[in-house]
Amino acid sequence: MYTGKGETHWIIPDGYIPPLSTGELLSHESICMLNCHNKDAQAFITIYFEDRDPLERIPIVVQGKRSNHLRTSSLELNGEKIPAGVPYSIEVESDLPIIVQYSRLDSTQPGLALMSTMGYPLRA
Amino acid sequence: MYTGKGETHWIIPDGYIPPLSTGELLSHESICMLNCHNKDAQAFITIYFEDRDPLERIPIVVQGKRSNHLRTSSLELNGEKIPAGVPYSIEVESDLPIIVQYSRLDSTQPGLALMSTMGYPLRA
Amino acid sequence: MYTGKGETHWIIPDGYIPPLSTGELLSHESICMLNCHNKDAQAFITIYFEDRDPLERIPIVVQGKRSNHLRTSSLELNGEKIPAGVPYSIEVESDLPIIVQYSRLDSTQPGLALMSTMGYPLRA
Amino acid sequence: MYTGKGETHWIIPDGYIPPLSTGELLSHESICMLNCHNKDAQAFITIYFEDRDPLERIPIVVQGKRSNHLRTSSLELNGEKIPAGVPYSIEVESDLPIIVQYSRLDSTQPGLALMSTMGYPLRA
Repeated sequence: MYTGKGETHWIIPDGYIPPLSTGELLSHESICMLNCHNKDAQAFITIYFEDRDPLERIPIVVQGKRSNHLRTSSLELNGEKIPAGVPYSIEVESDLPIIVQYSRLDSTQPGLALMSTMGYPLRA
Repeated sequence: MYTGKGETHWIIPDGYIPPLSTGELLSHESICMLNCHNKDAQAFITIYFEDRDPLERIPIVVQGKRSNHLRTSSLELNGEKIPAGVPYSIEVESDLPIIVQYSRLDSTQPGLALMSTMGYPLRA
Repeated sequence: MYTGKGETHWIIPDGYIPPLSTGELLSHESICMLNCHNKDAQAFITIYFEDRDPLERIPIVVQGKRSNHLRTSSLELNGEKIPAGVPYSIEVESDLPIIVQYSRLDSTQPGLALMSTMGYPLRA
Repeated sequence: MYTGKGETHWIIPDGYIPPLSTGELLSHESICMLNCHNKDAQAFITIYFEDRDPLERIPIVVQGKRSNHLRTSSLELNGEKIPAGVPYSIEVESDLPIIVQYSRLDSTQPGLALMSTMGYPLRA
């Protein structure tokens, strides 16, 4: 039983991959996770959309004593990816407690915009 | 009784619809909500102002297993909308637990600015 | 006794008034507060610095059923204000529970940057 | 025993020092801490990477009744610093309860981007 070092269930309601970029920096989002345990965490990411059924439980690993900044554009389930330009939400479930933050970089217009928030932890 | 998957009462103190935009992206705010339940959530949004009585309990729906990115400029009660350029606050009440995040895009000046925060959950 | 609708004690560790602005928008910070009660809240704001004693308990009012977006540059105690260009921290104490969010607009360089976070509630 | 005025253990999953800057403002991150107690807090910062062992327990002090906006680029352990351009995570442990917020300024592209979030408090 692991009871410390975070939570096993996190929600990020505001997901969005900006379809355009300018300059050197690519518009993108990252789900930033920290696993403070010595062993790897097996996590699953579910993507909820506004107008269709969710992409459920995409498996990922967060290694022990490691940070993982996961680009949402890299997530894939049965050949399906998160489309750019579509509002969606993110659910992260992990077998070990982890800590989850969400950040977005948007370079659609000249210059650069950033936003970030801690995920919202769900407790049983 | 639903006890999991979020909270039924959320507050966002910093609401503001930027009145100007530049470039392709329109300045706007979104209340981003996720309903992890199988059935729809009936929610109500109350808008508090600095100098007059609130617009109370504008009804909205957050569908089951769906994300809802709601633009604040679309909210309307008896023909009244949230005016642009005015500081205000947001209260979200829902019959089912949901998770609420708030984000703003401001393109008033060339380039782009983003900000985001999880809503603040109120517990009884 | 009021037990609901927020917290009576909030902290914002990252305060900073950008000394420069470009374009139409003035660089500024706001402490955004919502009082959901029917009666006014009497609050006090304490400003902590890196290298000197705090400015303690500047009185402000958050009216009942009203939003209050307070510019930090307007705070004053015995003729002393928060200087621009200096890192500091903010403490908000209120006799009634309120909800507190912090936002900053920085237009030091062409374009615009925003950041926001919910305050951190302290419980007794 | 100190039980109030914050938490003794905080996590920031999304750390990143932007390697480039434009204009007058240097890209940087700050760990912003407030110690509301009368005595100094002894804190330790651990840096987790994606592909190697953490830099563990870099000692810092947060003075009593003082704000501390600590630039992550100033952290050093046995001559090793946090490299720019590398995703990482931050853990803050303190002997006294403090409050921790994280902010990043990115001026890689013309203009300016800001992001901020409260740290995530870990409770035993």
